[in-house]
Amino acid sequence: MGITLGANQYGKAEVRVVTVDRSAARHVLRDLNVSCALRGDFTAVHLDGDNGHVLATDTQKNTVYAFARDGIGEIEEFGLRLARHFSSAYDWLTGARVEIEEYGWGRIAVGGGSHDHAFSRTGGEVRTTVVTVDGADAHVISGLSGLVVLKTTESGFAGFPRDRYTTLAETDDRILATAVTARWRYAATSLSTEPNEMPISDYAAAYASIRSTLLETFAVGYSSALQETLYAMGQAVLESHPEVAEIRLSMPNKHHFLSDLVPFGLDNPGVVYHAADRPYGLIDGTVVRDDVPSADLAWRATPGFC
Amino acid sequence: MGITLGANQYGKAEVRVVTVDRSAARHVLRDLNVSCALRGDFTAVHLDGDNGHVLATDTQKNTVYAFARDGIGEIEEFGLRLARHFSSAYDWLTGARVEIEEYGWGRIAVGGGSHDHAFSRTGGEVRTTVVTVDGADAHVISGLSGLVVLKTTESGFAGFPRDRYTTLAETDDRILATAVTARWRYAATSLSTEPNEMPISDYAAAYASIRSTLLETFAVGYSSALQETLYAMGQAVLESHPEVAEIRLSMPNKHHFLSDLVPFGLDNPGVVYHAADRPYGLIDGTVVRDDVPSADLAWRATPGFC
Amino acid sequence: MGITLGANQYGKAEVRVVTVDRSAARHVLRDLNVSCALRGDFTAVHLDGDNGHVLATDTQKNTVYAFARDGIGEIEEFGLRLARHFSSAYDWLTGARVEIEEYGWGRIAVGGGSHDHAFSRTGGEVRTTVVTVDGADAHVISGLSGLVVLKTTESGFAGFPRDRYTTLAETDDRILATAVTARWRYAATSLSTEPNEMPISDYAAAYASIRSTLLETFAVGYSSALQETLYAMGQAVLESHPEVAEIRLSMPNKHHFLSDLVPFGLDNPGVVYHAADRPYGLIDGTVVRDDVPSADLAWRATPGFC
Amino acid sequence: MGITLGANQYGKAEVRVVTVDRSAARHVLRDLNVSCALRGDFTAVHLDGDNGHVLATDTQKNTVYAFARDGIGEIEEFGLRLARHFSSAYDWLTGARVEIEEYGWGRIAVGGGSHDHAFSRTGGEVRTTVVTVDGADAHVISGLSGLVVLKTTESGFAGFPRDRYTTLAETDDRILATAVTARWRYAATSLSTEPNEMPISDYAAAYASIRSTLLETFAVGYSSALQETLYAMGQAVLESHPEVAEIRLSMPNKHHFLSDLVPFGLDNPGVVYHAADRPYGLIDGTVVRDDVPSADLAWRATPGFC
Repeated sequence: MGITLGANQYGKAEVRVVTVDRSAARHVLRDLNVSCALRGDFTAVHLDGDNGHVLATDTQKNTVYAFARDGIGEIEEFGLRLARHFSSAYDWLTGARVEIEEYGWGRIAVGGGSHDHAFSRTGGEVRTTVVTVDGADAHVISGLSGLVVLKTTESGFAGFPRDRYTTLAETDDRILATAVTARWRYAATSLSTEPNEMPISDYAAAYASIRSTLLETFAVGYSSALQETLYAMGQAVLESHPEVAEIRLSMPNKHHFLSDLVPFGLDNPGVVYHAADRPYGLIDGTVVRDDVPSADLAWRATPGFC
Repeated sequence: MGITLGANQYGKAEVRVVTVDRSAARHVLRDLNVSCALRGDFTAVHLDGDNGHVLATDTQKNTVYAFARDGIGEIEEFGLRLARHFSSAYDWLTGARVEIEEYGWGRIAVGGGSHDHAFSRTGGEVRTTVVTVDGADAHVISGLSGLVVLKTTESGFAGFPRDRYTTLAETDDRILATAVTARWRYAATSLSTEPNEMPISDYAAAYASIRSTLLETFAVGYSSALQETLYAMGQAVLESHPEVAEIRLSMPNKHHFLSDLVPFGLDNPGVVYHAADRPYGLIDGTVVRDDVPSADLAWRATPGFC
Repeated sequence: MGITLGANQYGKAEVRVVTVDRSAARHVLRDLNVSCALRGDFTAVHLDGDNGHVLATDTQKNTVYAFARDGIGEIEEFGLRLARHFSSAYDWLTGARVEIEEYGWGRIAVGGGSHDHAFSRTGGEVRTTVVTVDGADAHVISGLSGLVVLKTTESGFAGFPRDRYTTLAETDDRILATAVTARWRYAATSLSTEPNEMPISDYAAAYASIRSTLLETFAVGYSSALQETLYAMGQAVLESHPEVAEIRLSMPNKHHFLSDLVPFGLDNPGVVYHAADRPYGLIDGTVVRDDVPSADLAWRATPGFC
Repeated sequence: MGITLGANQYGKAEVRVVTVDRSAARHVLRDLNVSCALRGDFTAVHLDGDNGHVLATDTQKNTVYAFARDGIGEIEEFGLRLARHFSSAYDWLTGARVEIEEYGWGRIAVGGGSHDHAFSRTGGEVRTTVVTVDGADAHVISGLSGLVVLKTTESGFAGFPRDRYTTLAETDDRILATAVTARWRYAATSLSTEPNEMPISDYAAAYASIRSTLLETFAVGYSSALQETLYAMGQAVLESHPEVAEIRLSMPNKHHFLSDLVPFGLDNPGVVYHAADRPYGLIDGTVVRDDVPSADLAWRATPGFC
């Protein structure tokens, strides 16, 4: 009966690394935010202040910059390189988690074409990956955040239970708006066979395709509830992407309330809305394959709801 | 010799109004953040707590929603409608300032086309206007903020003075990055003749054209200093847009430092950079026409540097 | 072999409720941010858009305000009241999670005393609780966030391994700064016997005592590593608070780098530092009792690292 | 008739400098955010990219750190030292603006006393100064921001005009809440006689006294309008501080709406409120001495409303 050390991790968060590929006149720009965390035997530093097992977080930062010298590739590949390096660096290190955000840039339009080395940020949306290496296992969870979408019609909310505290009216036509955070786990996980290391084109192609699927599924059809839309979006991704084992979606309901203009002698047939900040609906869900084993380790330290 | 009331204003800030034009199957979505401020004789409320002259800020909010029922038009027009209404509502009200931010939305791509009523946010960039009505005068300052741009080459910084505290090396090839905030004042200002009320197509067309001009000018040519680039951008706008009297640009220098990889036995020929948060360079400038009178009132209460 | 619904939850987030107890001339002010999430059988809404099981998030918001009419008590108690209400409201609801942030206010000093009904915010620090009710089980995890602390000396970092990417010098005197997020789980969890419902004075007293213990332990002694300090803080809490089963601490290392003043002909004996934003050290750890069972459910949906 | 350069400035923003005075065992910690901007003849860099007049912003940053080696003193004094240095560094530099934010730290309580070298942040409130040197003139505007205050009673709003868009009910008992930003200008401005350079104790004493005056005046008495409270606060500062020439106050009305609990069969006699985010009331005002000349230059580039 005593007090002991439980789960822990440490690392360097938010290393902002930007790379330029100048191998051709048409430069390629990459803009990343990299966070590393190591797992292993860190008992001595916690209990005795002995840093013998503590690969300095400053060293981790240096490693990110040094590895970037050879190019990033896709962020999933860069994460795997880093996570494998860290987890095999010393025998007391058993695993590593590398989380990467990538910010999008487009080429500036000049004279009917697009510029070779001048860029503008494409918006608030962020491409993400969380790579976890644990001994011989590797997990890759990719995703996006900040994808803000809105439908002006074809959304309703009705048939919900009414109790003492229910005042909400039913509706068959409302604005539906959300900011999508999606994280999908790729199926292959074994380091030895490395089946999850798709060729470089594949991570990018999968990202683009999954993003389009999410957007299209949000757009089409009638939404009876944000949960129905969430599930449909996840289901569509799994149906069209066999390489995806599961997908988690967090889609807060960003309420738009119809303004009451009656006091001013005006009607309001779905024209004027107030966009509210808080509170908002919290809608989180997972769509899974029933024949794929779960992978708790892959999600460790990732904000979630399971 | 005494203590008195000086400059003051009051209003309602950040009214989030969203409108949907459903007159056709292809819905039109507008997403605004409107802030109003009234000017006039408010001595009694300050000195005696007498609210007889205080058009409630809640009323101002209601007015924004009620006016939106008739459609927004361009934000400059919506601002002029509101500012004129407020400034003429009571004889003790002499003027009004209406600031509007507009958030961009694009149609979601579905099946090779674009959707009629499903949208996604286009990014962090914001279109802005500041409308000031003062008696018979009206001023319109339009602009944008959050336009983040970057050049991977064709930028240097050299020839600057060196004093005891100077350690910076000269360079003829660096990353140049900034987040542009631009505010341009339209030339016509008289309410009676209302020459500044261009047809509805014009404010939108001017915005699109000025934005392109800013982007293109940033992209092309060699930059010896961010100030040179700023001035060139403003000059290009004035040269191509006679309706613009002056333009103010705030373009913080978002530093990207070349990583020192020598300790790791690596060179770094412009490949790996650290994107720094703080401190950043503060670069503010105005480009004006020397034959157009200034208009201090137009800029009142707008963050600036003059 | 098919695609199915996995873990999910929904609710209303960030309900901002403020209460005033006017039962005496000396008013008592409470300022909360409440987020609710329900767990249960929500298959129908996800797969078929059938809202028959969906207690509207608007109803959840109303319930928070209605329950506040009877007073808040300690946030742990308010969370338990809400979570039990929700989890027992319908037979398809099996559990609820209620997360509450409380913002501190102090009385304004006037004339040597403190005012009865005028207050000022006490700062960025926030008191938190996460209450999870699942059938007959209840869990209470209380904590704080935004407790920013700094030691100007008695901190070092040495004896760490050096690899190819290590450039950091050893030091026996540095600034140590962090923003503490702490979450501690109270031991008693059974709803039937309700042992974790301490009298109203106890949650507040435990909070004050644990906060003091965290601060004092941070302050005293020499820190060989932030992990050592983190563990000592958690250990001190468990040693002095038998009602606490475990504690999780997230303590980012907010780096303060000694300025290099040599180029200006100046020494810098620990006088001038640059406070860096990013990257920062990520230091997360748990201190547990080895004879207390873990409670994964209590931590579900709470940002963590385990 | 042509296009020319208008008002401009440049500098280094948000230099985060922390100093430790170790001259006694009881360390003194200072935590500043310093922004510099230079004014002068910068035509060549804007028009021709000639940096001969551009004291690098990196040099400005270095200067801040180097000057901090001799200690900060009060932030007004540190700002004056820096602004005078910059404005006299080269003959083409005519002036400088130095804005400083200071973050508060208190000593951690340990064993009935307060610790010598361990500190915790005191909250969101920030002490500020804006120092402007222009040739022989110096201006000091000090202030605070983020002082969040609230009264639970003794506040009303009635007697306001009602137009077509007015729906707000009159009230004689509401919650009044705001976040005070105050900036007061010290009267003496001449560099040659330097009367505004009060001894080191004075800036700190004036700050503490003005802060107390603002808080006390907010607390006491009945508020008929936030404008009345704002003016009373400014008036009290001017009456008790002859060294202050004018004060500008920005006090957004942070609305707290009484919850409507009638649908739930409950009354709500001032017990439960919803704290709203947006929109908020914008309340800006200045209190001046009618025998003190204004000083537009002192306020240049400072967010304001005049």
